[in-house]
Amino acid sequence: MAKKKAVAKKKTAVKAVKEVTFGQCGITTTIPSKYYLVAGHDEGMTPLNAFDNALVDAGIGNTNLMKMSSILPPNCTQIKPVKLPLGALIPVAYASKVSTIVGEVISAGVAIAIPQDPNLNGLIMEYSGAGHKEEIEKIVRSMAEEGMRKRGYKLKEIKSIAIQHKVDHTGAAYAAVVLWW
Amino acid sequence: MAKKKAVAKKKTAVKAVKEVTFGQCGITTTIPSKYYLVAGHDEGMTPLNAFDNALVDAGIGNTNLMKMSSILPPNCTQIKPVKLPLGALIPVAYASKVSTIVGEVISAGVAIAIPQDPNLNGLIMEYSGAGHKEEIEKIVRSMAEEGMRKRGYKLKEIKSIAIQHKVDHTGAAYAAVVLWW
Amino acid sequence: MAKKKAVAKKKTAVKAVKEVTFGQCGITTTIPSKYYLVAGHDEGMTPLNAFDNALVDAGIGNTNLMKMSSILPPNCTQIKPVKLPLGALIPVAYASKVSTIVGEVISAGVAIAIPQDPNLNGLIMEYSGAGHKEEIEKIVRSMAEEGMRKRGYKLKEIKSIAIQHKVDHTGAAYAAVVLWW
Repeated sequence: MAKKKAVAKKKTAVKAVKEVTFGQCGITTTIPSKYYLVAGHDEGMTPLNAFDNALVDAGIGNTNLMKMSSILPPNCTQIKPVKLPLGALIPVAYASKVSTIVGEVISAGVAIAIPQDPNLNGLIMEYSGAGHKEEIEKIVRSMAEEGMRKRGYKLKEIKSIAIQHKVDHTGAAYAAVVLWW
Repeated sequence: MAKKKAVAKKKTAVKAVKEVTFGQCGITTTIPSKYYLVAGHDEGMTPLNAFDNALVDAGIGNTNLMKMSSILPPNCTQIKPVKLPLGALIPVAYASKVSTIVGEVISAGVAIAIPQDPNLNGLIMEYSGAGHKEEIEKIVRSMAEEGMRKRGYKLKEIKSIAIQHKVDHTGAAYAAVVLWW
Repeated sequence: MAKKKAVAKKKTAVKAVKEVTFGQCGITTTIPSKYYLVAGHDEGMTPLNAFDNALVDAGIGNTNLMKMSSILPPNCTQIKPVKLPLGALIPVAYASKVSTIVGEVISAGVAIAIPQDPNLNGLIMEYSGAGHKEEIEKIVRSMAEEGMRKRGYKLKEIKSIAIQHKVDHTGAAYAAVVLWW
């Protein structure tokens, strides 16, 4: 591609994207600048259908979720859940639990520890298991807090979400932090 | 983004890329617009080698596969398997099964439910286990159908692929939907 | 960001990105051109905290790691570990082992088989388990070697890293190949 054309293209394309110049190798990468929390639960015909139905219940079932480990980029701002483009590739950190034990209560939760210094990253933790959502949420919040302590970051606040499901035949609980630009 | 500039950009850069303008944050993201189904199976020295050999057998063993959950973007068209660039990052939805039980028959399958409305997304389901490919393929097709029903989408058709492997010492079966641009 | 600056930056920024024109569908994709090996280990309050702490110990704990299967792109050059942008999406191939068996020695290792022909891809293998690092590293190297043999590639060399951890209460060992541009 001629350099002139490449520049012309760039002019129009990347206005709102948060760019990080990476001196050592000269490339430009984009880092998500928005996030929101979601949770969902449901039954399904099979374990994967239950998982899929929980994603739909959470409002992100029609996108391509790519699981990642689990950082909130610096200066990332919380937004309300948005209508993501159908089929888009979406980075998420999530917890999920599927169970076929009739009557069991299962829960999934995520927590984000946000540092006092906005130029530092936050930390996302995920936890799921048998148990009620209050219990799961308490654990996942303490996990996020511990991760901040370990990094030597001063904690500003913890945001979290958890959801529970009582299994009828094949149930799923799902909680996620969605990153977006 | 001014339409004129956007067109100018398109001409030079990325003719076939499907773009979604996302009003709320102003960025442009690309959504895969092509897909194809593949499957492979093989033995290997270790479980991971068997998996790797099955990928090679499926024709996608020299790329970096990034697993995602499991949507066919709207207006995505099926193509014949292509020679992907070596080492490229490729979004895939896949099922795999590895076994070290000598003589066991294992299978892996994926199915895509395609909606009647081309502006809606399709749904990919994955399933694997001990058993013959006809059985696995039947199950994974019914899973995809169920997901469409749950979404309230009218089903146009289901595409699927499955493969089986009889384990000699350490075997793997693998089936995938590859997304591409 | 002023548009002028963005353009100026772009001019300089995109030089080093390796582009692959993919004739059949007309798009341009970028393939990582740099890599390095890292390893870390630690204890943690929970299994996920131990994993997170091992990532921090490895120097990549403040990024969003996206697991992929496991190819070194052609002409990829090894660099020293770099300070990755906080929260960036990073493709990695990794092995990890978490254990809560007090006193157990656990190890994780990765190996890269590099072909004689620089236009061919290399292969990354991952292995982890109970055992000492020398043992794990030996196994993962032989796995990478086997994958090259299977592809019919002539082997130039194998690079590897492994690390071990003796579990106090909840421990993790982690080894990875980081791809970068």
